[in-house]
Amino acid sequence: MDTSEASLVRRFSVKRVEQSGTERVMDTVAAEEPLEIRVRHWVKEAPASESLAVTMRTPGHDRELAAGFLVSEGIARNRRDIVDLRALGTEPSNEIVVELAKDVDFESWRAARSTLISSSCGICGKRNQAAVAQEIPPRAADRLHVTRSLIERLPALVARAQRGFAQTGGLHAAALICAEGELVRVFEDIGRHNALDKLIGWVLLEDRLPLQDEILFLSSRSSFELLQKCAMSGARVLATVGGPSSLAIEAAREYGITLIGFVRDGRFNIYSGEWRIDL
Amino acid sequence: MDTSEASLVRRFSVKRVEQSGTERVMDTVAAEEPLEIRVRHWVKEAPASESLAVTMRTPGHDRELAAGFLVSEGIARNRRDIVDLRALGTEPSNEIVVELAKDVDFESWRAARSTLISSSCGICGKRNQAAVAQEIPPRAADRLHVTRSLIERLPALVARAQRGFAQTGGLHAAALICAEGELVRVFEDIGRHNALDKLIGWVLLEDRLPLQDEILFLSSRSSFELLQKCAMSGARVLATVGGPSSLAIEAAREYGITLIGFVRDGRFNIYSGEWRIDL
Repeated sequence: MDTSEASLVRRFSVKRVEQSGTERVMDTVAAEEPLEIRVRHWVKEAPASESLAVTMRTPGHDRELAAGFLVSEGIARNRRDIVDLRALGTEPSNEIVVELAKDVDFESWRAARSTLISSSCGICGKRNQAAVAQEIPPRAADRLHVTRSLIERLPALVARAQRGFAQTGGLHAAALICAEGELVRVFEDIGRHNALDKLIGWVLLEDRLPLQDEILFLSSRSSFELLQKCAMSGARVLATVGGPSSLAIEAAREYGITLIGFVRDGRFNIYSGEWRIDL
Repeated sequence: MDTSEASLVRRFSVKRVEQSGTERVMDTVAAEEPLEIRVRHWVKEAPASESLAVTMRTPGHDRELAAGFLVSEGIARNRRDIVDLRALGTEPSNEIVVELAKDVDFESWRAARSTLISSSCGICGKRNQAAVAQEIPPRAADRLHVTRSLIERLPALVARAQRGFAQTGGLHAAALICAEGELVRVFEDIGRHNALDKLIGWVLLEDRLPLQDEILFLSSRSSFELLQKCAMSGARVLATVGGPSSLAIEAAREYGITLIGFVRDGRFNIYSGEWRIDL
């Protein structure tokens, strides 16, 4: 078994209470531990190092999580921006260091943020409300079209890869799917933001940013911050099992993203960009 | 209608796709907007003011949210610590100012944190992993007992008060229930952390902290940070519709909190502190 998979869950002795009686059983739950993301960057030709964020995450795929967090924050935009990614101390470790390329302008990114932020919300550390909105990279026009039947099949397609959820009922999944319907990759985490960061970080590390003709699918609801992460990745279509917030819809309409919610039982709602869906 | 209730939801035109066909309908979704929490405090007899956090929240009950955030952070411990709470500008406002009493030691709290944090995660801004754990106020031994039938009735009891969820399917609820079974108060928010902060803030503003013989109930899963908020409020029993994370269970066992999960269909699991539940 992949060691990353092994750490998704933990086992605890619990008391189960049912109509038929009570019993002590071993229960499998989603693993949660803090991860500190540190960066090494350059200030006027001199190396510098600092703590960037502490996030509560499900251990495993920490490299992808850290890389995706930097994409979501607008610090890293392509594979070359990250020189190295490694755990501190012996593994399993709860600290990871990202070494940035010399030409990554970390200082001006920090000017708009405070020194320490959280990856679970994506807005912490910003100095005020105006700074909440991330600067989205410009994108070329697209001719992406997705069929209705693919959207309908997404939950079943992704469910087969949600190993942690099947065991615990407590892990979110973020999935990348080709417009032709092939499942490319799924990541799970106790936090929906982390699950999406792991996926986007994997895309960065595979040097596939920005996304073009792929669909993002989340087992959760959608929020403003998830739409921002989607926009930073370049993805044009986001489908979710749950519903969107008001600001998720407004952000999707502003960014030109097709936002789909409540994908369940052969039904779904299109909140924006319906021209990309062949009905 | 209470203006706070009015702002829980928003209406959008969406396309609904079903087996029977597609139609354009008006859909009701959970409202999400940023809230900036500012504090006025005292540094050596001189008043000071600063931005403490920006959180994405469902508008309404912002006073309670800000107060509860300060409790969760360990800044405010009782009603006297907060002199005033008011919105900035015209309402509805996305900025709130909390004026702290002169004897609140804001500076030493800040020494352990960075200057700007997020309320959605509760761990942002902490300088390292060791600082993630909040200092829990000491508590006297309790003789709280809760019946199995009350636990089983919680979802139905609280569902009647979940107005926003009934309309959107996208809002979490945090509820306070007496051990005798009376529903005291319910707050809803797009974020589970915010919903619990609103509830705990209401308890503070009612001068009922620390909680003694009440149960906290959440419509969500439980995490380390939610257990910390529970502990900061003094509550001894937390029941949730979803499951706990590994660290939620470990925190509950360390804090002596009775943690119950998967409260559904007349069943539940007890993860810690089962001596308080009469089976």
